Amino acid sequence: MCGVVGVLHSYLSNDVLVDAAYDVYRSLLTLQHRGQDAAGIVGYDFTTRKFHSHKDLGLVGQVFNEKVLSKLSGDMAIGHTRYATTGSDSKLDLQPLVTGFPVGLGIAHNGNILNYHEVSRFFSQDRGNQLLTNNDIELFQNFWCQSFSQYKDNFLGALIHGATEIVDKLRGAYALVGMVSDEGLFALRDPNGIRPLVLGQKREGNRLSWMVASETVSMNFLGFEYVRDVLPGELIFIDKKGELFSKILTKGHVAKPCMFEWVYFSGAESSIENQSVYGVRLNLGIGLAKQVKPFIESGEISPDIVCPVPDTSRTSAISLAEELGLPYREGLIKNRYTQRSFILKDQEARERAIELKLSPVVSEIQGKNILLVDDSIVRGSTSIKIIKLLKKYGAKEITLAISCPPLKHACFYGVDFPDPNQLVARNKTNDELAEYIGAKRVIYLTEENLKKGIGLEDVCMGCLDGEYPTPTDGSEEFKRRREEHKKSLALECL
Amino acid sequence: MCGVVGVLHSYLSNDVLVDAAYDVYRSLLTLQHRGQDAAGIVGYDFTTRKFHSHKDLGLVGQVFNEKVLSKLSGDMAIGHTRYATTGSDSKLDLQPLVTGFPVGLGIAHNGNILNYHEVSRFFSQDRGNQLLTNNDIELFQNFWCQSFSQYKDNFLGALIHGATEIVDKLRGAYALVGMVSDEGLFALRDPNGIRPLVLGQKREGNRLSWMVASETVSMNFLGFEYVRDVLPGELIFIDKKGELFSKILTKGHVAKPCMFEWVYFSGAESSIENQSVYGVRLNLGIGLAKQVKPFIESGEISPDIVCPVPDTSRTSAISLAEELGLPYREGLIKNRYTQRSFILKDQEARERAIELKLSPVVSEIQGKNILLVDDSIVRGSTSIKIIKLLKKYGAKEITLAISCPPLKHACFYGVDFPDPNQLVARNKTNDELAEYIGAKRVIYLTEENLKKGIGLEDVCMGCLDGEYPTPTDGSEEFKRRREEHKKSLALECL
Amino acid sequence: MCGVVGVLHSYLSNDVLVDAAYDVYRSLLTLQHRGQDAAGIVGYDFTTRKFHSHKDLGLVGQVFNEKVLSKLSGDMAIGHTRYATTGSDSKLDLQPLVTGFPVGLGIAHNGNILNYHEVSRFFSQDRGNQLLTNNDIELFQNFWCQSFSQYKDNFLGALIHGATEIVDKLRGAYALVGMVSDEGLFALRDPNGIRPLVLGQKREGNRLSWMVASETVSMNFLGFEYVRDVLPGELIFIDKKGELFSKILTKGHVAKPCMFEWVYFSGAESSIENQSVYGVRLNLGIGLAKQVKPFIESGEISPDIVCPVPDTSRTSAISLAEELGLPYREGLIKNRYTQRSFILKDQEARERAIELKLSPVVSEIQGKNILLVDDSIVRGSTSIKIIKLLKKYGAKEITLAISCPPLKHACFYGVDFPDPNQLVARNKTNDELAEYIGAKRVIYLTEENLKKGIGLEDVCMGCLDGEYPTPTDGSEEFKRRREEHKKSLALECL
Amino acid sequence: MCGVVGVLHSYLSNDVLVDAAYDVYRSLLTLQHRGQDAAGIVGYDFTTRKFHSHKDLGLVGQVFNEKVLSKLSGDMAIGHTRYATTGSDSKLDLQPLVTGFPVGLGIAHNGNILNYHEVSRFFSQDRGNQLLTNNDIELFQNFWCQSFSQYKDNFLGALIHGATEIVDKLRGAYALVGMVSDEGLFALRDPNGIRPLVLGQKREGNRLSWMVASETVSMNFLGFEYVRDVLPGELIFIDKKGELFSKILTKGHVAKPCMFEWVYFSGAESSIENQSVYGVRLNLGIGLAKQVKPFIESGEISPDIVCPVPDTSRTSAISLAEELGLPYREGLIKNRYTQRSFILKDQEARERAIELKLSPVVSEIQGKNILLVDDSIVRGSTSIKIIKLLKKYGAKEITLAISCPPLKHACFYGVDFPDPNQLVARNKTNDELAEYIGAKRVIYLTEENLKKGIGLEDVCMGCLDGEYPTPTDGSEEFKRRREEHKKSLALECL
Repeated sequence: MCGVVGVLHSYLSNDVLVDAAYDVYRSLLTLQHRGQDAAGIVGYDFTTRKFHSHKDLGLVGQVFNEKVLSKLSGDMAIGHTRYATTGSDSKLDLQPLVTGFPVGLGIAHNGNILNYHEVSRFFSQDRGNQLLTNNDIELFQNFWCQSFSQYKDNFLGALIHGATEIVDKLRGAYALVGMVSDEGLFALRDPNGIRPLVLGQKREGNRLSWMVASETVSMNFLGFEYVRDVLPGELIFIDKKGELFSKILTKGHVAKPCMFEWVYFSGAESSIENQSVYGVRLNLGIGLAKQVKPFIESGEISPDIVCPVPDTSRTSAISLAEELGLPYREGLIKNRYTQRSFILKDQEARERAIELKLSPVVSEIQGKNILLVDDSIVRGSTSIKIIKLLKKYGAKEITLAISCPPLKHACFYGVDFPDPNQLVARNKTNDELAEYIGAKRVIYLTEENLKKGIGLEDVCMGCLDGEYPTPTDGSEEFKRRREEHKKSLALECL
Repeated sequence: MCGVVGVLHSYLSNDVLVDAAYDVYRSLLTLQHRGQDAAGIVGYDFTTRKFHSHKDLGLVGQVFNEKVLSKLSGDMAIGHTRYATTGSDSKLDLQPLVTGFPVGLGIAHNGNILNYHEVSRFFSQDRGNQLLTNNDIELFQNFWCQSFSQYKDNFLGALIHGATEIVDKLRGAYALVGMVSDEGLFALRDPNGIRPLVLGQKREGNRLSWMVASETVSMNFLGFEYVRDVLPGELIFIDKKGELFSKILTKGHVAKPCMFEWVYFSGAESSIENQSVYGVRLNLGIGLAKQVKPFIESGEISPDIVCPVPDTSRTSAISLAEELGLPYREGLIKNRYTQRSFILKDQEARERAIELKLSPVVSEIQGKNILLVDDSIVRGSTSIKIIKLLKKYGAKEITLAISCPPLKHACFYGVDFPDPNQLVARNKTNDELAEYIGAKRVIYLTEENLKKGIGLEDVCMGCLDGEYPTPTDGSEEFKRRREEHKKSLALECL
Repeated sequence: MCGVVGVLHSYLSNDVLVDAAYDVYRSLLTLQHRGQDAAGIVGYDFTTRKFHSHKDLGLVGQVFNEKVLSKLSGDMAIGHTRYATTGSDSKLDLQPLVTGFPVGLGIAHNGNILNYHEVSRFFSQDRGNQLLTNNDIELFQNFWCQSFSQYKDNFLGALIHGATEIVDKLRGAYALVGMVSDEGLFALRDPNGIRPLVLGQKREGNRLSWMVASETVSMNFLGFEYVRDVLPGELIFIDKKGELFSKILTKGHVAKPCMFEWVYFSGAESSIENQSVYGVRLNLGIGLAKQVKPFIESGEISPDIVCPVPDTSRTSAISLAEELGLPYREGLIKNRYTQRSFILKDQEARERAIELKLSPVVSEIQGKNILLVDDSIVRGSTSIKIIKLLKKYGAKEITLAISCPPLKHACFYGVDFPDPNQLVARNKTNDELAEYIGAKRVIYLTEENLKKGIGLEDVCMGCLDGEYPTPTDGSEEFKRRREEHKKSLALECL
Repeated sequence: MCGVVGVLHSYLSNDVLVDAAYDVYRSLLTLQHRGQDAAGIVGYDFTTRKFHSHKDLGLVGQVFNEKVLSKLSGDMAIGHTRYATTGSDSKLDLQPLVTGFPVGLGIAHNGNILNYHEVSRFFSQDRGNQLLTNNDIELFQNFWCQSFSQYKDNFLGALIHGATEIVDKLRGAYALVGMVSDEGLFALRDPNGIRPLVLGQKREGNRLSWMVASETVSMNFLGFEYVRDVLPGELIFIDKKGELFSKILTKGHVAKPCMFEWVYFSGAESSIENQSVYGVRLNLGIGLAKQVKPFIESGEISPDIVCPVPDTSRTSAISLAEELGLPYREGLIKNRYTQRSFILKDQEARERAIELKLSPVVSEIQGKNILLVDDSIVRGSTSIKIIKLLKKYGAKEITLAISCPPLKHACFYGVDFPDPNQLVARNKTNDELAEYIGAKRVIYLTEENLKKGIGLEDVCMGCLDGEYPTPTDGSEEFKRRREEHKKSLALECL
């Protein structure tokens, strides 16, 4: 996952009140949960006709300070906060990416290109270009550079031509913001709208400002009005006067937003496709409660309290507790300060590592039957440790309720799940799984309740049912190379 | 506030399994909430007869890494995690403090000495010593150095003599751990037991290990059994073979533990004076619910939801909601990543700063009457901003329930409240306060319900009722100098 | 001034012995005196077809370490060591500059483009390109990018076309190295050959290696044979098999190498245009001795010792002392460690700053008449301080002999002299100057002796006589903007 | 080697003009050549009665900046610049060392204590103290702390008592500066005066200032008048009013200053025991010339030029060339920038490493018989490389003249020579040595000429003739532990 944002203050004269980069900076702070590895902003000043940029590894608040931001002047800016799916990597791979030839172009995206290696070869071998990064954003750059070279005198035509080529040739998910010097801001969302991208507006005096961002949370804070989601396959261009141009570049595609945005990724304060994330999570808890109820009524389980695995599943746990009429208790406290700590490498110590992340509240655990709520199970190893911990501090019986159906397949659209063979739900029945992790029972939300909770029929559930919105040829090379790359990074760190 | 911990593995032979410093490090991680400004550990190796120490500004996980810890070998160690009441300060002021003459001595404490300046003058003028830090821990050092110089051949006598002088001469709160080279570990708690200090034990094979720590949470994680709290005015010494010696140095003093430890400071997972912090917070919520109920029944307020100001007041809010039969909703999300960010210095921006810390969940706020729960009101300015924020996103009416009685007086025992004149509850009636912060009504927990919730009759409530457990002469010089010091630090940063 | 170097190991197979970047790194170490502000290397790997680059502020030995270099694999590399004529500047301005569209291109140069601003406007306004740096190297990049876009299928044609445009349109000095992915290494020297650039070769087994570098000192150390200087106006291309292609792009131009390379810039160990720098400096000392002799014979001056201002003028001082039969003494010791120190800002302290750089050897100064040798006088302020210092420690009389004629005009070719109005020799007679700086007499080398010492008739002496090898229109805008830029940098540092 | 300095401005009133720490800082800059590993300053303010200190690894100019210095206020300060004989070590070992109990005491020294381990054991076992560093300066501290504890009411008596104990118990070399809070500055030199220490004075208005420093170079720059050298075995105390007290603590000791101070360590600008270092080096060159002359006259060698190994031996080479009537040429240029560089680890590369440090000036070397001048030969490996390098660039024949007699024994007084068995002169005749290093002949200065050049009969020549000014029992433990410590540091770095 990554977060992107672009802001344009319609360019009236020199009376800049607040630089666009400052708005982008504050937006990125609200999108920090989408990526904590690196951050970057590029501003463009219509008056001096200059780009100013800054990007680095680290959190938004670490990468930027007042002095740095004061240099990123101008009425237009884009920004990016990065989740590096392939580990700690090169500064060359940070976004936004900027070039000056044949035009001044800055771009940043959230997503993943499945046929990256195939298209890379096309550029280097057929076109004689040289890719300087390992980041798929450079493919977008090359499509547009080629197009702007060819159609020099028709800016909008060239922008559309490049975007059309992208939509034709690149397979995957992308929610992209960009800008062209002396022209304006643009945005592009993949034909299935897998990653979120929303459009907002603010009017101050006779100045109109636009924002394109990954999530609505950015708009609230900056006082922008949410206008609408960017549509699947839509190219939006906003010129320096604030005029908006839009074109849908695909037909016949069905929107397939990623269900995991509501379940886990997006901020609880955001709305995706007009569905409040917090509200959806409450719904998922209610749906799950209905699935749990029969087991209680049959006497198979008799939970004393509902307890979430913090932080994400807290919301679903609250509504689930309410629905079942059970007390909601936080038997596990998340330790905010232990992220950077290390642990001795012997077996005993590693098993206790979970206790540095989650502290048990003994008074609430002891002697209780616990209905534990989590948002997903990946390898199962964390669930094992949590349940062991609860039992160590006196829990009698644990039932695990999951506010999402079982993960069984790879994601090609930006989520860094491990090799599908390591997904524990792929190879085990529910009973086997419960035994494996030490729970009395595991209750997964059904796909039906998931869709009902989100309120949409069409969502991308590729990781659940293996049905992907795009063709997946090339995915084998993609997976193989990603594993190689991870290994080479790991070796480097030895 | 600060956190302290000391560990001694009874010294049998060379077969160290895990260095005491590693235990202290992991304990400090669990005490991180007591101080985030700096951390330090000193280890002593009975075999090589060497001290090894490391301390620096930053979080425990930043200050220590595997390489650093590997150097802090030995069977005895003490550690400290620091909350700098006077802002960013000198590395000389970090704890533990160590000296080698006339004996090897390391000490660290949590607390505050009211008559610091008076006793400092005694040392420098009457005794000709030179204080090298601005930290009151150095007073303890000087008392003991003097005593060890005088009574060279009677270690325990000298330790007791120094501690007796301390108890006689120093006024304030202190929960102290220390160690003496070639001898062992010791602990001292002030005559009123204002700050917490607990004793724990672990037996592995024929090796006995002891831990003294600020909170029980440290013991759970490291597998130590809680033995008891160190008593008010008690000096404990544990020799290198694991033998424990104890002496109560005062008589006629009443234990007066700080009530704010349960309300706010201590980890929810800990027990203070055998009272579970999480449990006490649930109790406070229930007590508060009983006080709120009449207003609902009378129709004066009609809350739709109960909403906590995260994170501390979440526990009380849960039990309060249950008791009142109202839905518990998290209408404000705490942003984990914005601590290090900055904000433009114009008025509008500063008012919005609260939105970077707390994001509103619009779907839960809009159109609702909210019963907001917080743990305290200091200046009132944060309450104003939070209520304004909730109303901006559509809240109809807000009632503010506080799980602690009104703060009206200074604290001299380690809590860095502002000048009492800035405490908003000091000068306003409840109605005035409600109007000032924009709430329909403010409901404070009563002192009676506070004591009932904690389960103890005698607690220090100096900041509530102005009745302090120690004499307070010297407090004026103390307050004046602290303000001056803060100002000089502020100037330095310009 | 800057230093550049390029290395290509003819690409036979995968059996790389030593990466080209490692050769470039060691070459840059020997060119460090040409620029201490920043350093960079870009390597190209013909096997993986990847560029790898690293550049940063600092000395070569600070910017590169073994780990960094190990990543810059491949048989071709170029490097740069930077002297920032405009003070501390942006990382974007560091060289080499690399781009990937329309081809993989890396370039670095030593020199200065007089009509930078005019050509910049041409690119941004007429061609719609966006300049992303403040460095004139980007102009070269844009000429070549345009050419490679236009003549896609004829690499060598495109390279020559771009170089021809450069030679036509850019006015100034440039000694440039570059490389194109999958093709090879190239070099270009301006039509007057103002800055030095030499070509060398090494044969190991059946592998041929080439080096292009600013000075011969680089070749000696790496075991390359000096082949010849790159000619004024010459484009050299060496393909990946080691074949060399050359084309002179100008006619009717006269070579005009900068005389200051021998006097001051170049390493004493190097040869420029086949003239040994150390030998030339000995010659200049002998010429100067001949000019000094009459004043001694007439009894006007009677020096006891010859004393150099370290380090550069030491060589000329030695031969001058020998020629005059006077003892050579180092009355001033250069302090190697005080570069980074600071000095109190009062008048008295600033005057003494020179003493931190040059320590007097009192025993050699006291009571002596000193014939002081320096290589140039710029503002005169340093001479004043040195003479004052010598007199303070007992020198009786000082005669200042300068191994270069008077500096009176601006340099547009890479030397950062101040505004010509601040050049002290411009406005003062010799006698006035002597009085101004406190010397008995100032003796400048004559232009005739300078040329004789160098052994060439045609050298650039623009800063001496105001006769420049290139047209100078645009120089006013150039000077004005440079001053503005320096001021803005200065403000930024406040 | 290390450098020390202490400054006291007589304390008249509050009208501090320049803080003593600023003078100490500037002095340390001029003493940087005595130690480049770390630096520290402690200042004492008589008005506020506070110590302020700062010390860190690095050069003086790196460790201190204006902000740091501005905090070290007051009229008295001492400083230290460190050469770590045992490699990169702990920050605890940096000087000056400061303590506050029983009095405020700061000390720093240059030298080495031979019986460190024996005296350490005395403190920890007999006295029950704990040594917290690995630095012999702590022994001095403990002697004085004990003395100040015992004789509380007689400051000067306690100071003398402590110093007398030091002179009795510690064997080795020490030139020490110190200060006591509220009292003043003091200095102590070992009974043989092995390391230099000089006293200077400045009078401004009615304020008298004193300086004690390792070398006179510090005084020149700061405008202090050299008064005299501190005498062997002398304790000097200067009270806050500027009154000087002196006492010689030994009798019957002969001054034995280290001859290597003139040959190599001290700055050329300094005078040691009233003998100018530059002048002594000229003398050594003349003495050496007289020893060389017979070989020239006999036709055995026929040098064309005299060439120094830069930098130290340049002075001797100049006078030697003059005396022999030969041209002085710098055939090797010292590269100022390659100190921090690294080199590939294969054999060929390592042999070339010398070329990164010393660049050959081919025009001066080629075809010449060279009389090469160096100041010493340790292992011989550098001489081998230099001679090989000169021959590679065409030198015909090389004679090596050394301005110091052969090094054959260990130094226990602060010079970090390797194990004596690795000293090449110990096991080889002159002819064998010449053959070993590739020279035609090696000519060492005679001990007689060394003493004549220095102008003193009694100097420490322990490393030449094995006759040491102090007893050497304990030296075996000292050597063994130093080797162990070096090894442990080396392992740590792996």
